[in-house]
Amino acid sequence: MDITMVSPEERLRKLGITLPQPPSALGAYVPCLQAGALLFLSGQLPLKEGRLTCPGKLGEAVSVGDAQEAARQAVINALSNVKAFLGGLDKVARCVRLNGYVASAPDFTDQPQVLNAASELLREIFGDEGRHTRIAVGVAVLPLNSPLEIDLILEVRE
Amino acid sequence: MDITMVSPEERLRKLGITLPQPPSALGAYVPCLQAGALLFLSGQLPLKEGRLTCPGKLGEAVSVGDAQEAARQAVINALSNVKAFLGGLDKVARCVRLNGYVASAPDFTDQPQVLNAASELLREIFGDEGRHTRIAVGVAVLPLNSPLEIDLILEVRE
Amino acid sequence: MDITMVSPEERLRKLGITLPQPPSALGAYVPCLQAGALLFLSGQLPLKEGRLTCPGKLGEAVSVGDAQEAARQAVINALSNVKAFLGGLDKVARCVRLNGYVASAPDFTDQPQVLNAASELLREIFGDEGRHTRIAVGVAVLPLNSPLEIDLILEVRE
Repeated sequence: MDITMVSPEERLRKLGITLPQPPSALGAYVPCLQAGALLFLSGQLPLKEGRLTCPGKLGEAVSVGDAQEAARQAVINALSNVKAFLGGLDKVARCVRLNGYVASAPDFTDQPQVLNAASELLREIFGDEGRHTRIAVGVAVLPLNSPLEIDLILEVRE
Repeated sequence: MDITMVSPEERLRKLGITLPQPPSALGAYVPCLQAGALLFLSGQLPLKEGRLTCPGKLGEAVSVGDAQEAARQAVINALSNVKAFLGGLDKVARCVRLNGYVASAPDFTDQPQVLNAASELLREIFGDEGRHTRIAVGVAVLPLNSPLEIDLILEVRE
Repeated sequence: MDITMVSPEERLRKLGITLPQPPSALGAYVPCLQAGALLFLSGQLPLKEGRLTCPGKLGEAVSVGDAQEAARQAVINALSNVKAFLGGLDKVARCVRLNGYVASAPDFTDQPQVLNAASELLREIFGDEGRHTRIAVGVAVLPLNSPLEIDLILEVRE
């Protein structure tokens, strides 16, 4: 079967991922908003059942492996918001941008390695349409002491 | 009177806010630029009459209350640029994105609380059209030792 | 000769700049992607022949002058990606946004001075179409211990 014929939601099932209820916004903003063909997502934290999968910073309390798991969780939370907003992931034409902010001790420089876990999950779910541009920066500290925050811009099928 | 019939500029008046002269850019860039229906704003600092309302970082010299006031000032500066560019706020169809960068001591994690002051002011001024997506990150340090920097993407009425 | 009749590639030649082979992505993402009329670029580091022009942070190992040279290199790398993607710089209608992240010691506040070197190079190459909106933030640390990371959004000629 041609991979291009497999829908993102089928791929999620094959990966054993169930999208959770979208996490609540941490403030006076909305999780998703469409302007023209672009869908903007608010910053996503690695919350699972209301708690961070691992609090702290890279180069301190959080290992690269734990942060990669957190990066996948942030993508899953993002997609739960996309699905709630669009009614389904099949309306995603493709990924455009992933902005990745990694809470980093001053000497931690492997932000790309952490964020690759998020980038690769998008590729696994969306195939070629999961390819995206990216920034990776190491920030001082994040809300709730999160190890990372990810936001996405997606293109929506007309 | 239906709130949806009140213009953003009337709401500003009711809030007692007078838009200042737009602050000068701190470098070789422009404050505002429209591409298609999207209006991009450069990063806005909480400058008032040419000075930061409060210099320093959250978790150090700057309290959450002072930073919330600074966040409102940065939004006011943003809107003074929007008005200068578009000729008036009524051409704003809606807010799309607020990116918030908060200069933070390594253990300050209440960036959302600070930025809610900006988000709520946008809602007060633009009503439902003031709803937006948002990122909130804690950065090491900002230009002029500013406590925060905010940038906006708005959608413009055709 | 009217400057507006000089192409970006001619201006590059006059500036003595040869675009290098685009640097490889540092992970599972793509360097460039077009959505509608907007061309999004991934974060660019000041790599030259595979190495950072200067590693470290502003306010520590890296001087403002060295960082300005690095900012120009990051722009050159960005444009090498743009040229590889579009086939030439003449398809750039204009610059829309430059996001600048400067790795900064906690008391370094001259991020705009560093990024002006990038902004001014865009103006030299693209003329009035090189004008752009900008954010300038000071981050804790960047991939590979880079002194800065720059990303661009450009508008492409139909």
